[in-house]
Amino acid sequence: MPAHRLRVIPLGGLGEIGKNMMALEYGNDIIVIDAGLMFPSEETPGVDLLVPDISYLLERQQNVRGIVITHGHEDHIGALPYILPRLAPPIYATRFTRELILVGLKQRGVKTDAKLNLVGPGSRITLGSFTIEFFSVCHSIPDCVGLIIHTPRGIVVHSGDFKIDHTPVISEATNFSQLASLGAKGVLLLLSDSTYVELPGYTPSEGVVSDTLDRIVSQAKGRVIVTTFASLVSRLQQVLDVAVKRERRVFIIGRSMKEIVNMALKTGYLTAPPGTICRLDELKSLPHNRVIVLSTGSQGEPTSALVRMANRDPKSQLQIVPGDTVVISATPIPGNETLVSKTTDSLFRQGANVIYSKLAQVHVHGHASQEELKLLLSLVKPKFFVPVHGEYRHLILHANLAQSMGIPEDNTFVLDNGDVLELGQDSGKVVAKNQAGVVYVSGLLTGELDSVLLQDRRSLSRDGIVVVTIAVDAESRKLARKPRIITRGFVDAADEQALIEKGQDAVQAALDHDRGRLADVSFVDTRVRESLGRFLYERIHRRPIIIPVVMEVGKSERKRTS
Amino acid sequence: MPAHRLRVIPLGGLGEIGKNMMALEYGNDIIVIDAGLMFPSEETPGVDLLVPDISYLLERQQNVRGIVITHGHEDHIGALPYILPRLAPPIYATRFTRELILVGLKQRGVKTDAKLNLVGPGSRITLGSFTIEFFSVCHSIPDCVGLIIHTPRGIVVHSGDFKIDHTPVISEATNFSQLASLGAKGVLLLLSDSTYVELPGYTPSEGVVSDTLDRIVSQAKGRVIVTTFASLVSRLQQVLDVAVKRERRVFIIGRSMKEIVNMALKTGYLTAPPGTICRLDELKSLPHNRVIVLSTGSQGEPTSALVRMANRDPKSQLQIVPGDTVVISATPIPGNETLVSKTTDSLFRQGANVIYSKLAQVHVHGHASQEELKLLLSLVKPKFFVPVHGEYRHLILHANLAQSMGIPEDNTFVLDNGDVLELGQDSGKVVAKNQAGVVYVSGLLTGELDSVLLQDRRSLSRDGIVVVTIAVDAESRKLARKPRIITRGFVDAADEQALIEKGQDAVQAALDHDRGRLADVSFVDTRVRESLGRFLYERIHRRPIIIPVVMEVGKSERKRTS
Repeated sequence: MPAHRLRVIPLGGLGEIGKNMMALEYGNDIIVIDAGLMFPSEETPGVDLLVPDISYLLERQQNVRGIVITHGHEDHIGALPYILPRLAPPIYATRFTRELILVGLKQRGVKTDAKLNLVGPGSRITLGSFTIEFFSVCHSIPDCVGLIIHTPRGIVVHSGDFKIDHTPVISEATNFSQLASLGAKGVLLLLSDSTYVELPGYTPSEGVVSDTLDRIVSQAKGRVIVTTFASLVSRLQQVLDVAVKRERRVFIIGRSMKEIVNMALKTGYLTAPPGTICRLDELKSLPHNRVIVLSTGSQGEPTSALVRMANRDPKSQLQIVPGDTVVISATPIPGNETLVSKTTDSLFRQGANVIYSKLAQVHVHGHASQEELKLLLSLVKPKFFVPVHGEYRHLILHANLAQSMGIPEDNTFVLDNGDVLELGQDSGKVVAKNQAGVVYVSGLLTGELDSVLLQDRRSLSRDGIVVVTIAVDAESRKLARKPRIITRGFVDAADEQALIEKGQDAVQAALDHDRGRLADVSFVDTRVRESLGRFLYERIHRRPIIIPVVMEVGKSERKRTS
Repeated sequence: MPAHRLRVIPLGGLGEIGKNMMALEYGNDIIVIDAGLMFPSEETPGVDLLVPDISYLLERQQNVRGIVITHGHEDHIGALPYILPRLAPPIYATRFTRELILVGLKQRGVKTDAKLNLVGPGSRITLGSFTIEFFSVCHSIPDCVGLIIHTPRGIVVHSGDFKIDHTPVISEATNFSQLASLGAKGVLLLLSDSTYVELPGYTPSEGVVSDTLDRIVSQAKGRVIVTTFASLVSRLQQVLDVAVKRERRVFIIGRSMKEIVNMALKTGYLTAPPGTICRLDELKSLPHNRVIVLSTGSQGEPTSALVRMANRDPKSQLQIVPGDTVVISATPIPGNETLVSKTTDSLFRQGANVIYSKLAQVHVHGHASQEELKLLLSLVKPKFFVPVHGEYRHLILHANLAQSMGIPEDNTFVLDNGDVLELGQDSGKVVAKNQAGVVYVSGLLTGELDSVLLQDRRSLSRDGIVVVTIAVDAESRKLARKPRIITRGFVDAADEQALIEKGQDAVQAALDHDRGRLADVSFVDTRVRESLGRFLYERIHRRPIIIPVVMEVGKSERKRTS
């Protein structure tokens, strides 16, 4: 009998889409799967990105045998630049993934001692008690893998982010026979992607987009500008293929698009006959119906090439003209809907014909729908099931799906980040629920997300701030002058001069009433907040943050500070 | 020949979903169609709601013959409480709509001299040069109408918000023969709803939801909690019908749900056998499988009954228990996606089984899809076409649709709010493009939306604020003490004490360097902003708003203020 239980510890990515990170622990061995970031939402204004809290790993640093990466999306690799300076075990990634990790480390100026080992489908590595085999899966970036992890307790299968695509554009198809033979042997645990569990049926093959793109390009009388995720290399390949077929030249704009296209051409993930891709300065000499532009901006990112075009930004490398066709070959990531809609509207305003996923099948997504999830479950036939990579509702629905396939309810575990699930041979149990923290990155600062700070920011964005300057005469202990109010983000100061003046009067009246206590700074502070807060709420029903600045002025003051 | 041209002046609702308002002008006669509000987005933090700028109408007050309302949704009636105190022409509305207008006026404490006239399908009213007939249309609230407006230039048809539903639950079906006979006579202009022009095919009938609700309720072992829009009375009726069929009692929670249910029962828009609807205190005595709860909160509104349940708010009238089924019989309005997802997740966390539109057909929307829009166009056969009620892309797509039906490009007009379109017998032209302002309501304040104010709020929400107190000795003109920094929403003050202190040093160093000029307050102000701004950006790459508070302290100061 094995001496230890297998511990499954999600550090990120459960109950959220983003910052995926999962630890498996057996005795003194820990392996980590993925190390991703999460982009901020409205709820975390002023935050650049969020990464998992790795305290659990830092406390057991000597046990961490390696970080295994399933693919190169930011929600799977984006935390490495922040983690590696503190924890540098060997890293295992496929070729394309490794290239993207290197780009990320370079961009953030991070040097690391961690070894970046190359693996691929069929590779087999041993990290302490764990032996890991890699199998290829289809997703929306090249070189994705799932993991077959042999542990002393049994086999763990991690799906990675996947869909089942029998006609992929550039990836290898999923190796079903390998999974099926595992299922026959007996799998202890399946960890599987829950992102699109709400969708019935099958996710369409990447192949179907080719036909749509070809139809659009062949019908377009002018330039065709295609925007998509830079890392969606199969889509880029489809655009290049259509360009060759329809005798158009391709121009690349946007920093990340250029970087990835160059990298993918160099590494052979992207192929094009010589002369297909041209420099931007060659664009002017071509008739519009010979041009395709590949651009960043599919998420309406404010500084992206497409948004600059949409807004007629003078810095834009390209101006939209009537006759242009813009293809948004992507769907908005939740939270980006408004940005994408605004960009679409602005492009229409410039005279472009915009084609997006509601109007034509110009995009298919990269995650498995219900029937594919069922197929994986029935191939792998796991004893235990843990849905990963999803909001809480996705995890629950995926657990329900697994139960409908015959996995007992007691053997399915919907976990939260920070939970410690221990698996024995026949049963599993959550033995600890740690508070999994979130680390924010904001400019050059990182830290624990502080709810007071975020609350203040929300409050400031709603009602603004009112600074009240109070000068107290150091000798007489009276107000040395009328209180003065400065505001930002509160009201239109020019329109509301009378309100501001009456507010000053209200503070003065409140303090005059208690003038005996003006030497007590904290009393003045409270009194100002209360009196002005009440006044403003009564007058206009708003509650700005009020900062009293109390200063003693007068002769005695000068003595004290000299 | 008529003496004047017909002027079409959208004051709101074009290039946006919300604050619908359209003026038609002929000679000295103006009629207004709808007077709606728009709910704010992330782009307008701290704003409660937005209403159209009615300067155009105020300048021609004596010409405004009436406001005609198509239906009772807030984006069609919600501006009335803000407009009627300034402009009080007679108002024309159907019965249910009038009830909702009265509720809105009462809630906001507005008394008006405007006469609220009752109209209905088949009514005919004359306002100056305009004679208006009303025809019933289906939408997602009772008593909706479209308008047939006879003008000296020809007939104008306004669709209102509509879909075509041959089996409506409580509304009358659309009167096609009336429209078709108009088409035969010749219609000058069609104004038609563009909201769902992106959707191919037909919008399903409200009737299909009944089957889904019945299946869910009959299968549920515990309570069923249904949330939907309070004004979607046909949905409420479906819930009541299922309750009667499945022998459950209905409990209503949430203020607006109670108000509308009571009003709809009283006015006969909603019917239920006696005893169907019970008081909340009777809930406890019933077994869970005999209970249906109708609740507000379908948009994840933070203070709604459903969200209180989801968050185990102690103030909630109901606690979710495992076995409860929650049906979200609505889809999120754009912008509310995150709130609704969070609510769904929280309900799942409480143990509820949550059923929402991605999982079952528990909702159909209230606007026409492409085939219905085409049907209206081909019935009415207008000479001119103006798409209304939509974001810019919707208007363009609707114009394209009309052109594909044979309306010449020169006769379709995609307008912006504030445009003045003049129609002659055979041609039309935008003769003026006024800047249509937006009026915000924020607490008790209203005003023109000020971009500086909003910019400050966004900046505050990202990077917070830093207040720097500078005390200048009035005699020596030196710093009387070290500058002091107070922050809000900037950094975690406890974690970043060292940063704050170094910032104070940086300001001091900058001012010491120029100490000769400290008597010049504006110089000090600029110097503080610059030096501290640079310091903070270099240190942490953030740019908070900096407010220097400069104060003279010392003997001379006391003299001056005494």
